[in-house]
Amino acid sequence: MAPPPGPPPGPPPSMALRTALLFLRLFTIAALFASIIVLTTNSAYLEIASVELKVRFKDIYAYRYMLATIVMGMAYTLLQIIFTLYYISTGNRVITGDGSFTFDFFGDKIVSYLLATGAAAGFGATKDMKSVFLGIGGADKFFNKGYASASLLLIAFVCTAMLSVFSSYALPKRI
Amino acid sequence: MAPPPGPPPGPPPSMALRTALLFLRLFTIAALFASIIVLTTNSAYLEIASVELKVRFKDIYAYRYMLATIVMGMAYTLLQIIFTLYYISTGNRVITGDGSFTFDFFGDKIVSYLLATGAAAGFGATKDMKSVFLGIGGADKFFNKGYASASLLLIAFVCTAMLSVFSSYALPKRI
Repeated sequence: MAPPPGPPPGPPPSMALRTALLFLRLFTIAALFASIIVLTTNSAYLEIASVELKVRFKDIYAYRYMLATIVMGMAYTLLQIIFTLYYISTGNRVITGDGSFTFDFFGDKIVSYLLATGAAAGFGATKDMKSVFLGIGGADKFFNKGYASASLLLIAFVCTAMLSVFSSYALPKRI
Repeated sequence: MAPPPGPPPGPPPSMALRTALLFLRLFTIAALFASIIVLTTNSAYLEIASVELKVRFKDIYAYRYMLATIVMGMAYTLLQIIFTLYYISTGNRVITGDGSFTFDFFGDKIVSYLLATGAAAGFGATKDMKSVFLGIGGADKFFNKGYASASLLLIAFVCTAMLSVFSSYALPKRI
């Protein structure tokens, strides 16, 4: 008697794993949301030569780049959460076939690089700008908030990097 | 008549692909070497309030981090080149079994993140420090060399990210 036909290549991961990955995505978007709030509400009055100078996050180019990476990370992560919820509720994928794995793989990979560079640019600029403005009233608090935002972005990166490991192992094809 | 036993899982990529990947690694290490030379030989005399101040790359924290990522990138890439040459000349792998694919996968992934963050920290700090020291003699040239080094590091990152896509597709296991 012939054995029943095997499952198609790349069987879908178990529901427990799928739920764990969904929680990782929810945690990512929460960290990104916290990061964007801390970043965009950051402003300070610096006292330079008895003149008060208002500094906002927009004045630091690295912080603008951080904002760009956070926005792209949030858009992508939200899309992935919607796709996962759609799959859990209907059992169908929005992207059918192997395209789904490829989308996850390249999406996670590119977005994790974006978030890594955003956090690194934030840390790099904050560290050196802080020592330049050392002792100037208001500067310390401003750059500490920059650190806080970059740290939250780093957490979001670590989550996305973990998701990227899973989406690489889930790739159905190999060279 | 029974068919001959199939190849083991995860057939080794063709020699043409292997050679292409080796060239990508050689290009990576060349870019990293150029980046470390430009970075570590960078120094300038800044004229601040008619006082000459010597600035070296070590004075910028982001550049120190760049140096650390370049050194780790060079060590890893050199190791991979030696492994590939050993495989091409003897036909044996230094790391046997699936461990070889796992090492390539996590190695390329982690090192590409390191290089990405190194380049991003370099660009982030350079951009903002350059505008702080705007108009100060010697600063422009110093930070332009910082840009040059970060750009070379970015090229090395792009090569390693491409290698990381290949080593992900070559992973023999999936979830």
